[in-house]
Amino acid sequence: MLTKAAIISVGNELLNGNTVDTNSNWLESRLLTVSIPVIHSCAIIDDIDEIKNAIEYASGKADVILITGGLGPTDDDLTRQAIAKYLDVELEYHPEIFKKIEDFFISINRPLVEKNRIQAYLPAGTSEIENDLGTAPGIFYQDDKKIIASFPGVPSEMKQMFDKSIFPKLQNLSTGNLVIKKIKCIGAGESTVAEMIGDMMARDRNPLINCTVDHGIITLHIIANAADKKIAEEMAAKDIKKLQHILGPLIFGYDNQTLAEVVGQELSKKKKTLATAESCTGGLISKMITDVPGSSDYFTYGWITYSNEAKISQLGVDKKLIEQFGAVSSEVASAMAVGARKKAGSDYSIAVTGIAGPGGGTEQKPVGLVYISIAGPNSVKTDKFLFGSRNRDFIRLRSCQVALNLLRLNLCI
Amino acid sequence: MLTKAAIISVGNELLNGNTVDTNSNWLESRLLTVSIPVIHSCAIIDDIDEIKNAIEYASGKADVILITGGLGPTDDDLTRQAIAKYLDVELEYHPEIFKKIEDFFISINRPLVEKNRIQAYLPAGTSEIENDLGTAPGIFYQDDKKIIASFPGVPSEMKQMFDKSIFPKLQNLSTGNLVIKKIKCIGAGESTVAEMIGDMMARDRNPLINCTVDHGIITLHIIANAADKKIAEEMAAKDIKKLQHILGPLIFGYDNQTLAEVVGQELSKKKKTLATAESCTGGLISKMITDVPGSSDYFTYGWITYSNEAKISQLGVDKKLIEQFGAVSSEVASAMAVGARKKAGSDYSIAVTGIAGPGGGTEQKPVGLVYISIAGPNSVKTDKFLFGSRNRDFIRLRSCQVALNLLRLNLCI
Repeated sequence: MLTKAAIISVGNELLNGNTVDTNSNWLESRLLTVSIPVIHSCAIIDDIDEIKNAIEYASGKADVILITGGLGPTDDDLTRQAIAKYLDVELEYHPEIFKKIEDFFISINRPLVEKNRIQAYLPAGTSEIENDLGTAPGIFYQDDKKIIASFPGVPSEMKQMFDKSIFPKLQNLSTGNLVIKKIKCIGAGESTVAEMIGDMMARDRNPLINCTVDHGIITLHIIANAADKKIAEEMAAKDIKKLQHILGPLIFGYDNQTLAEVVGQELSKKKKTLATAESCTGGLISKMITDVPGSSDYFTYGWITYSNEAKISQLGVDKKLIEQFGAVSSEVASAMAVGARKKAGSDYSIAVTGIAGPGGGTEQKPVGLVYISIAGPNSVKTDKFLFGSRNRDFIRLRSCQVALNLLRLNLCI
Repeated sequence: MLTKAAIISVGNELLNGNTVDTNSNWLESRLLTVSIPVIHSCAIIDDIDEIKNAIEYASGKADVILITGGLGPTDDDLTRQAIAKYLDVELEYHPEIFKKIEDFFISINRPLVEKNRIQAYLPAGTSEIENDLGTAPGIFYQDDKKIIASFPGVPSEMKQMFDKSIFPKLQNLSTGNLVIKKIKCIGAGESTVAEMIGDMMARDRNPLINCTVDHGIITLHIIANAADKKIAEEMAAKDIKKLQHILGPLIFGYDNQTLAEVVGQELSKKKKTLATAESCTGGLISKMITDVPGSSDYFTYGWITYSNEAKISQLGVDKKLIEQFGAVSSEVASAMAVGARKKAGSDYSIAVTGIAGPGGGTEQKPVGLVYISIAGPNSVKTDKFLFGSRNRDFIRLRSCQVALNLLRLNLCI
């Protein structure tokens, strides 16, 4: 039987827009490495009954319940009381825990205050999860149906306590073997990719294939489940092969690869260099390329030619071209790419000119019109795109992704 | 009576450590501005019954239920089915919605596929929340006890739809009077800012002042609560004056202003222009500047001179300076700034050269060493920074923020 987990994050600050909860995400990743999927995660205000209700709800769904937050010394820290209420037991004072809290305060040269005494109480029938980094011990409970483990909300403390005390227990518990692989695609919409894949996305299939989309990047998650880890891996590998066959050049990478990484690897492998000439993207393509460590090996020169004069003086674009066709035109995009490649002495260049909006659009040249040109040793190819009159960030980001993808296709295929 | 809200985020990717949910946080902040506290927030896997159960659970606690995710066209998008199941109704086909989806595909020049038809279905008794940015319409339901609003998970779509369609309804519902103002600071740590503010951060104070930090930008949230909206606004205004007095030039903006916006406004006001010369930041400063609509009025030229040759040929940096002091040096940073300003014919320039890592550091010039130079009509000022050997993204982002802040201080003070 596959063990399932639920995560409960306690704290008003998680519900008033002030704190993005990253603990859950971290725990989810850790649990997946031992093939325990998280099926429910929630954030709860600092209220005994709300926390108790959340534990009750989670215990109906999961056999591992992880709680973070609400173990501090102040009056709004109520997780230990809520666990006691859920288990229908009293809180018990543990002098040996209090001694540790006292020692901790001595070690950091700070006075212990009476408020901290509450941290030496645990619900009857539970045990302490040791905390080497702070004053709040965690709470551990186990019966034949479930495990409850409660940690402080401070990420560094929670992570250390989880890895040291709870992770080994879960490794023993876990019986299933989940293997998760990712395929990353660009160049078609989510629905097109789903249609191409067809039945492989059936909900009751194993491996299960999920699809997420983030700014034009479509990620397929292949989740294989088997009694044996090797078999799960083989199942995933078989699906990846099938998907490669179906999706072909739409696939640009695997797992956490970015487009810029893939392009960079290809340039490195071929010992080729790249230059950029950006107008409407304003530096974003270069930023993406230089996000990759070691990009100085292949990326040498970049220009942001936001004004016409910059296009003329820096890239050698013929003034007449701009006068005749306008700065946002196929002709100027090509001239920018050719000019950048020549000036940089690079093997390849990317040039982008367009109207990112919200202003500057006309009927003939609307917001969202973007020309992208890729110049290489053998060709200059310029394409026209209409990204629609959405917001500026969308148009700029999509332009960069499409530009990097065009270079990828030029390099790889 | 104070209306309460619950948030349900749908998607396997939220539960496998792949995606940190930022939608909930954003919604929580927006709801607080109309005095509606979020008392429960949860992430749910792509499963009809799990989503339905979550809606049921939430409806026992809250009168406003906001759902994000699960409205896409693929088989793992199940929110509309779950809402129908919760309401115990069928899905109904809306040809007028399908027409809009068709038009959307035409506008972005992509083929519509049959899979998208599902997005034209709504549970009976619900209505469409219009989506101008994508194909997935939202779902709106209201009875005398509660509101349910369901949005796509794509943050840009969700935010626009919420603000346009749902926020005005909630403003009418809300009875409390909360005024939230934000002050944005840069140039000192969170604890330093907290110490400067002192008692104003007391937990039982009204206005309540909360402090969040995000990549070096410290935001103070001033939350004033009063029976009358005007009084709450006056209370917040009074605190802002106090804080301006205490924090002085550490404050760079208010509410959602970015550093690049503030710098851009100042340049526009003074009718001055700016050029950039970036090495280790690789285009990120230019990207931030051009994130701002209308930046073409003051931003004309940018260079990414990643290689030494680029610094020499494009910015006119003396080759001997690089040989004598190295590319990462105060001398080269100054020469880059002076060269960029001259070549662009701009009033101001920003130049950055440094070691973003993870490779390339030495004992003398470690990872995290960055020189930033600001050249203006009257001066060239170059500063040295040690951002520590943290990750590449951190060093690059911090370099950009500090650079923009130095320009701000130069322009404003």
